Amino acid sequence: MKKDRSNASRREFIQQSALAGAGLALANPLQMFAQEKQQTPTAKNIKSKGYAAKDASGKLSPWEFERRPIGDNDILIEIKYASICHSDIHQMKGDWVPQQYPQVPGHEIAGIVTAIGKNVTKFKVGDKAGVGCMVDSCMQCESCKHGEEQFCDNGATVFTYGAADKTSPTGITQGGYSNNIVVKDHFAIHIPDHISLQEAAPLLCAGITTYSPLMKANFRRGDKVGVAGIGGLGHLAIKLAVAKGADVYAFTTSADKTKDILSFSAKEAVVVDDILKLKPYKGKLDYMISTIPVLFDVASYAAMVKRNGFFTQVGMPVGFQVAFSNIGLANSRVNFNASLIGGIPETQEVVHYCADNKILPNIQIIKADQINDAWGKILNKQARYRYVIDAATF
Amino acid sequence: MKKDRSNASRREFIQQSALAGAGLALANPLQMFAQEKQQTPTAKNIKSKGYAAKDASGKLSPWEFERRPIGDNDILIEIKYASICHSDIHQMKGDWVPQQYPQVPGHEIAGIVTAIGKNVTKFKVGDKAGVGCMVDSCMQCESCKHGEEQFCDNGATVFTYGAADKTSPTGITQGGYSNNIVVKDHFAIHIPDHISLQEAAPLLCAGITTYSPLMKANFRRGDKVGVAGIGGLGHLAIKLAVAKGADVYAFTTSADKTKDILSFSAKEAVVVDDILKLKPYKGKLDYMISTIPVLFDVASYAAMVKRNGFFTQVGMPVGFQVAFSNIGLANSRVNFNASLIGGIPETQEVVHYCADNKILPNIQIIKADQINDAWGKILNKQARYRYVIDAATF
Repeated sequence: MKKDRSNASRREFIQQSALAGAGLALANPLQMFAQEKQQTPTAKNIKSKGYAAKDASGKLSPWEFERRPIGDNDILIEIKYASICHSDIHQMKGDWVPQQYPQVPGHEIAGIVTAIGKNVTKFKVGDKAGVGCMVDSCMQCESCKHGEEQFCDNGATVFTYGAADKTSPTGITQGGYSNNIVVKDHFAIHIPDHISLQEAAPLLCAGITTYSPLMKANFRRGDKVGVAGIGGLGHLAIKLAVAKGADVYAFTTSADKTKDILSFSAKEAVVVDDILKLKPYKGKLDYMISTIPVLFDVASYAAMVKRNGFFTQVGMPVGFQVAFSNIGLANSRVNFNASLIGGIPETQEVVHYCADNKILPNIQIIKADQINDAWGKILNKQARYRYVIDAATF
Repeated sequence: MKKDRSNASRREFIQQSALAGAGLALANPLQMFAQEKQQTPTAKNIKSKGYAAKDASGKLSPWEFERRPIGDNDILIEIKYASICHSDIHQMKGDWVPQQYPQVPGHEIAGIVTAIGKNVTKFKVGDKAGVGCMVDSCMQCESCKHGEEQFCDNGATVFTYGAADKTSPTGITQGGYSNNIVVKDHFAIHIPDHISLQEAAPLLCAGITTYSPLMKANFRRGDKVGVAGIGGLGHLAIKLAVAKGADVYAFTTSADKTKDILSFSAKEAVVVDDILKLKPYKGKLDYMISTIPVLFDVASYAAMVKRNGFFTQVGMPVGFQVAFSNIGLANSRVNFNASLIGGIPETQEVVHYCADNKILPNIQIIKADQINDAWGKILNKQARYRYVIDAATF
């Protein structure tokens, strides 16, 4: 019996090996040739220039670098606009994990396709395209096959900047604060003509990061949805939740955002200059999303959600750390979860949804040499609400 | 129109006042008399002796004190056994919030009713009765009326020890490490004859604290349930989940608990001497409960639960603080919640369920002068699994 099993195992192993061999034999000969060709010296790196962090100071400066040659499944995008996400600042400062420098941040990227690889059918030259928070994954696992590439079961998700990347001449992925990007077609998003590139850019992270959990929350028309932290993500969360039929209650620490918040059609704007300001809303909300990117009193915010409801944290504080009173959370009986961006199909969905329904971020266009100033304003809560860099100024 | 509404309001007010008056008039005259009587000097305090913390050192010593007179809705219980909960240690040391001393801990109490107030019908003298984590609440709000007195909407839940209590001669509630207790009948639990008092005591906190979230988790027969932290609570969680049909996976840092864990009919006992030991279970469990009473790697434990599943934390670490990696939790997409004991009806339910199904804690009987030693052993993870104090030794 033992022997049989052993034989069976060996048979299985051989079968698998054979299948692997068959797979190789069946591979597209053009592709194999192409892969070989790509490795030849004639495949030239793409020159790029942008703004990079050279250290953890949180200051960026101009930098010229190279990107990989355009692979058969790649497209080259001439970047027109790249917008600034609080995560760019966190990561460049090493707030989460130590970083390799120089590193170009930026994962809200919009531009025009200027070249495509041999196998690319998803885009043609001249198309408008965007890139969000990731540029590769295994594409074979259940998560990848089901459009959740950010949760690749093989841990092969490659984020848009700072991730180890053998294909990159600098050894890491380099982001969108630059004049071009080479990316696998699967990870690029179509931007339709009825939305401007500068307004589409923030949807690639701020849009999908709020859209995905809001959709999962499955609230009904007229339900009360709370949004805490009204910055780049929060202001889009309000607009998206309103568009989906919710009565939105917005919580901000910036009193001067009240007027804006109401203009986004929120039902109420609550200025949380004292945590007691939350008390009247205890147990009143059907769902809540927090974009707050720093440590805060999670249990008190979560207590505004009805019993057994859900509270989603999308802001990623220093060290990714969230801390709260367990007894506080026990008292509210609210379920806490976290959400990480969204998959490629859903990112395409939010871009179409926003274009079709005119859900647009409030943006301010800046030049490359204003990036450091803009970062300071974001940290001082002065952004209204998304800075978008004009890539022509790199 | 406005005037009419004003009149209507006034009418309503008057009606309500009238009803309130009627209520007073209809009140049991005996009860009114009794209330008056209770306030007379003839109502004597009850002498009690036990072990108390005199400061935050974590050491207890003998103490004689008084409890309130037996009110009309009160019962007097002669305590036979009181078991030791990790929370007793946390609270006496001021790990959560500063405390008033002297304070008698203990909220797993079992004994015999020796006197009852005039209005008491729930108990008679000679009944076996237990007291758990709370001794009073408003009894009027939605939570109280629905058997969730621990979540009293008016914040009037009074916990068994250390809570401000005007009726107590010491100004705070005093717990069960003593020879008697006066408690409102509603907050006492019947202990049936087919379970011993010493085995019933731990059910009043450890039992209900694990039973309540396990029932809420609503798992099905054959589902995989994880239990992390195999002490007084955890060992009962295993037995309860097994009894309810789950395949239980137990996670402990104490290798020498393996044999016990398997004897409790857990499917597997996993010794977590390295966090990587959790990896093979990633995404495998249908539900998980953690009784770990210290800071731990929540995101790694939660990642063992299937996507969109639930992870419940019942252990209350120092400062009640739980902290974790938000991106870790985002990656697993598991919902984190906390649970706080259970209401009085559900506490009665778990006592009956355990008595009927022979789900008994593993206990060690100790004398009063062994309490400090036992506390040391609990902190050193040497308890197997619940110390029960013989109240005759106070």
